[in-house]
Amino acid sequence: MPLTPRTLNNCEALDGQDPLAGLRAQFSLPEGVIYLDGNSLGPLPLATPGRIAQTLNEEWGKGLITSWNTAGWLDLPQQVGDKIARLIGAHPGEVVAADSTSINLYKILSAALNIAADDPRRTAIVSERGNFPTDLYIAQSLCRDRGLTLHLVERDELDAALRDDVAVLMLTHVDYRTGTMHDMAALCAQAHEAGMLTVWDLAHSAGAVPVDLHAAGADFAVGCGYKYLNGGPGAPAFLWMNPRHADRIRQPLTGWWGHAAPFAFTTDYIPAAGVNGFQSGTPSILGLAALDCGLDTLLAAEGLGGMVALRRKSLALTSLFMALVQERLQGHGFAIATPADETRRGSQVSLTRAEGAWAIMQALIERGVIGDFRAGDGKHQHDILRFGFAPLYIGHADVWQAVDQLHQVMQSGQWREARFAQRHAVT
Amino acid sequence: MPLTPRTLNNCEALDGQDPLAGLRAQFSLPEGVIYLDGNSLGPLPLATPGRIAQTLNEEWGKGLITSWNTAGWLDLPQQVGDKIARLIGAHPGEVVAADSTSINLYKILSAALNIAADDPRRTAIVSERGNFPTDLYIAQSLCRDRGLTLHLVERDELDAALRDDVAVLMLTHVDYRTGTMHDMAALCAQAHEAGMLTVWDLAHSAGAVPVDLHAAGADFAVGCGYKYLNGGPGAPAFLWMNPRHADRIRQPLTGWWGHAAPFAFTTDYIPAAGVNGFQSGTPSILGLAALDCGLDTLLAAEGLGGMVALRRKSLALTSLFMALVQERLQGHGFAIATPADETRRGSQVSLTRAEGAWAIMQALIERGVIGDFRAGDGKHQHDILRFGFAPLYIGHADVWQAVDQLHQVMQSGQWREARFAQRHAVT
Repeated sequence: MPLTPRTLNNCEALDGQDPLAGLRAQFSLPEGVIYLDGNSLGPLPLATPGRIAQTLNEEWGKGLITSWNTAGWLDLPQQVGDKIARLIGAHPGEVVAADSTSINLYKILSAALNIAADDPRRTAIVSERGNFPTDLYIAQSLCRDRGLTLHLVERDELDAALRDDVAVLMLTHVDYRTGTMHDMAALCAQAHEAGMLTVWDLAHSAGAVPVDLHAAGADFAVGCGYKYLNGGPGAPAFLWMNPRHADRIRQPLTGWWGHAAPFAFTTDYIPAAGVNGFQSGTPSILGLAALDCGLDTLLAAEGLGGMVALRRKSLALTSLFMALVQERLQGHGFAIATPADETRRGSQVSLTRAEGAWAIMQALIERGVIGDFRAGDGKHQHDILRFGFAPLYIGHADVWQAVDQLHQVMQSGQWREARFAQRHAVT
Repeated sequence: MPLTPRTLNNCEALDGQDPLAGLRAQFSLPEGVIYLDGNSLGPLPLATPGRIAQTLNEEWGKGLITSWNTAGWLDLPQQVGDKIARLIGAHPGEVVAADSTSINLYKILSAALNIAADDPRRTAIVSERGNFPTDLYIAQSLCRDRGLTLHLVERDELDAALRDDVAVLMLTHVDYRTGTMHDMAALCAQAHEAGMLTVWDLAHSAGAVPVDLHAAGADFAVGCGYKYLNGGPGAPAFLWMNPRHADRIRQPLTGWWGHAAPFAFTTDYIPAAGVNGFQSGTPSILGLAALDCGLDTLLAAEGLGGMVALRRKSLALTSLFMALVQERLQGHGFAIATPADETRRGSQVSLTRAEGAWAIMQALIERGVIGDFRAGDGKHQHDILRFGFAPLYIGHADVWQAVDQLHQVMQSGQWREARFAQRHAVT
């Protein structure tokens, strides 16, 4: 059904017809809150507290040490990894949940560089200047320690940067600031043509947009558990390796959990086969159990069209938000930083404004519309108001209300009140 | 009160006089279980499920993203670190809880090697052949990537190994197999005399024996959150750096959480000051909250004499166990691998036996006495039955009962039943 005019009534009608609308009931969302920050921290699944109570009271409390065997703790990193695999076009046994995105990127990027070292002319990592900072920090560290160059370019300079001195192209699939999405398959083809490996950060993709790592021919990927996967604050992250590289993997964080036989307690490290060799220390069982519940909220959509249906709804929501911003917030100084082209858009919309973005977001949060703020660099990048649209729990009427509240914040001038200017660490 | 004869009645009398006996009430321990595996996985504190439910339902569920500020999530790694500091002779602000022991060791050992690289003659890491495997695996990885030598020796060869080509002496303070404890202060003095740095793994020390890192003059330390600190399966680990090295630290896992200003999202990595620069990815809030509760069970002893009183009781328990084994299990083929010398003993006792150790432990576990098994290397090391005595929740009568059950297992020959021979991954 086309949505014109874009009224609250029509939005509610669309939600009434939405076969995915029932999925929202899987979450504990506070009354009166429209949560548009699932791209930073997904909300609490209703199933999680019960599962964690079970893990604590029954498995840890009663089972004690025996629960490593009897409660399946030993298999959780792979079991959770297999659920993630279903969302990103990977096969069972190819994904493991472990550590943080930063740590996993260090492992993956090290492994990629170790393979690429076969060709000593390849002395650079190429990435975007606007990539998520932790990815850049990890790459900087590896480049420094290995005498390589980190070549950071703007998005439109990527083509020219894929030269024959490049070892690895490291990109975040969906940009955390603007929500701009790369064409993974095209870039992989281009990178492989130029003889380099590809490392993808799926932090803003997994559970947000359809990803097909095998179809794209990607080499390595990492991703985050606490954004669209709803795994909770600081949830374990994940990593994937294309099995074609399995025989050539050497990564430096050789903790016992990545050993072929950790409980043999041998003196020498022998890596476990495949992606399991990317494990390192003892995994967080509470973290994995919560992430498992988060993943179930996405897999619940499998019978309803899965990521394809979620993507269709996500695009409807982001398109609606952009249209309403253009209709109702003209003259308030906002620009839309997210592509109008649906094929290049993730599951968020970012608005820029020359000044006041922080205070405007605080005023909006006070009204129950939770997005977040990301600072610009004071040069090329403006400050950003960021709105994530997770189709699992956001509907068309939410989008309408969010824009309506933003409109009220701007019309009233309320955001200029002094209390909204006070900064704290995280929005 | 001297314990002679070593009868159950006398043990119960000692427990009746024990000022620490009330601390056991802090834990959820199953009826009929004597838990002697807190050196592998500490038991569930009663406070933990409530705290985690609060973290889930109130902080995550209702506070959502704002809880990073409003619920204190941002400060948890340091807040938990400060509690650990009180147990290991470190000062506030010197310890951070993060990642796993393996990952933390990689960071710490890298930082130590970076300092030691000022003297290019120092090309070796010295450790014990019997050190916990994950420590050896991490050291092997760093040695391989940096062209250094990992020199593994037996304990009695350490003196001779501390030569002027050594960059770092890396030891686990209390041996995971035998419970043998190093003299940290003496080894630090000897190592510093020889111009090398010291890295200590406190996995079997923190919360088990008094540790005074400053008094010992140690350089770096890491440790585990899920053993004697009762933080739960796969709890965050910790790390400490002597502040005298603060200005010279460079570690490779430069994730955004270790940045001086993570939410400024700058392109270049600038490490946070001091130990905070050893943080990497987003921390696990569930893991930290549970570890916080685990630490409270130890800090509850501070008004009762703290680690000194816990140590006194621990030695009484391990001495009692050793005496009862000698009295009651003569002729059953056991040898005690743990030092009779109290100054060299951690908080566990290990028994070796030429054969049958696995089956004997399984028969004992079936009777409610939970210890664990660690395989020997088939050469120098026999298989081990390992018994941890955490004075927070173990009493003298528990020790008596444990030996009595072991005696019954041996007298009856029950352990030879086929079902006890079946091996699984973890005891």
